[in-house]
Amino acid sequence: MGALHDGHIALLRAARDRERSVVATLFVNRAQFDDPNDFAAYPRDEKFDLNVFEECGVDVVFVPNEDELYPNGLSSRIDAGPVAHGLEGVRRPGHFDGVAMVVAKLLYLTKPTCAYFGQKDWQQTRVIAQMVNDLDVEVDLVTVSTVRDANGLALSSRNALLVCNELEAGRSLFRGLSSACDAWVQGERSPRTLLTVMRAEVAMEPMVTVVYADVRHALTLAKMESVNVPFVIAIAAEIGGVCLIDNVVVGDGLIDVELDPR
Amino acid sequence: MGALHDGHIALLRAARDRERSVVATLFVNRAQFDDPNDFAAYPRDEKFDLNVFEECGVDVVFVPNEDELYPNGLSSRIDAGPVAHGLEGVRRPGHFDGVAMVVAKLLYLTKPTCAYFGQKDWQQTRVIAQMVNDLDVEVDLVTVSTVRDANGLALSSRNALLVCNELEAGRSLFRGLSSACDAWVQGERSPRTLLTVMRAEVAMEPMVTVVYADVRHALTLAKMESVNVPFVIAIAAEIGGVCLIDNVVVGDGLIDVELDPR
Repeated sequence: MGALHDGHIALLRAARDRERSVVATLFVNRAQFDDPNDFAAYPRDEKFDLNVFEECGVDVVFVPNEDELYPNGLSSRIDAGPVAHGLEGVRRPGHFDGVAMVVAKLLYLTKPTCAYFGQKDWQQTRVIAQMVNDLDVEVDLVTVSTVRDANGLALSSRNALLVCNELEAGRSLFRGLSSACDAWVQGERSPRTLLTVMRAEVAMEPMVTVVYADVRHALTLAKMESVNVPFVIAIAAEIGGVCLIDNVVVGDGLIDVELDPR
Repeated sequence: MGALHDGHIALLRAARDRERSVVATLFVNRAQFDDPNDFAAYPRDEKFDLNVFEECGVDVVFVPNEDELYPNGLSSRIDAGPVAHGLEGVRRPGHFDGVAMVVAKLLYLTKPTCAYFGQKDWQQTRVIAQMVNDLDVEVDLVTVSTVRDANGLALSSRNALLVCNELEAGRSLFRGLSSACDAWVQGERSPRTLLTVMRAEVAMEPMVTVVYADVRHALTLAKMESVNVPFVIAIAAEIGGVCLIDNVVVGDGLIDVELDPR
């Protein structure tokens, strides 16, 4: 969806390193916004984005307009099932229907052998994996780790909507995730306790309002009685009217984030 | 779904005449049956079907089992929108979700340039057209006219579930459709009147219970205030515990059925 940052560049570089040729798509997909104001406010800078694509060695850029991608509007809905129903699926009704549809369309239209997505939108990667599996789309999916600034804030196009002290406050999300991770490493297995630890850390930052905080099975996104690998801890929080999301995923023998970025 | 009859053979011949190579799929798709008893009772004769495919010059037969087509079950749903919501969509909740999904999967797996469907399942052809359009599936769709027996009964795999006098009674569906067509040709434009004419004709057959009878825009399947081309007259009726469907489609300057088969 453009407004490219180092997180996107990590996707482009991963693709460039591994693939014979790289196609980038650029389309701010109205269908995945539940809030028209959010769609209107979404940062756009096509000229800048196209330069980034060129600098990253992208071979083909696909920048459809709405009339090209939705010539007859849109009637169909794809509901990817349980993976789409919690977390962001609750906060943004219909969001993942729009994501699943536009990704299905873009996969049909660009026919990649492999498609790259960012871990920051972890649930999105699971929704797309489910859709690709159920529809028998022939594509391999790669999830690239979240890129963070020096203080742990996950890079996001929405960060451009925050001012300086709000960005500072946003760093509490990763501090919270890391505290919960710490607690898990120390042996804590209760989801409720892990989330309490996380919320306490985030609550130290008064500008931040937690929208949800949850720990789920990393692949199915099912709730867990006891937190065992693989799992994802996910948080959404509002700062200055902007909602940011972040997560850490802990897999078999692997913790994909530094445990203490403070 | 097999249990092949001359309606399917018309599809195979149309494909054989027009295409370089022909792939036939054979799969009784549990996901499109709202009623497990209906699924269990659906006629199956794979050996017979494979012979028919061979006789019709099919090059490739794709006969997946459920584990192959749904290795991880099925989570996603495709709702094709308004075209899927009336008529059969009301009578068989979830039916078109299952149809849209299995056809999407089969199109992905077999990658035909052109896919052939029968007009008898007119609404299904519109659901598939909508899904193919929304998902940008690269395939041309061809609808092949309904094949009828000498008395007008639309061929259907379900006819095998009827005994002799029930088959006889089933012919009233096409008599009803034809009466409504006659009335339209005479200048009648009220949907209510056309349907009254149709129901009166069908009601002369006491073994038949009409489940629905409707006239809709042929492409969008929207209800119409005044019946103008293109339109479809559709009927579903139960005979001896089996539900049969039939339709006539009237397009620009074209009536695709004989007006009076009696």
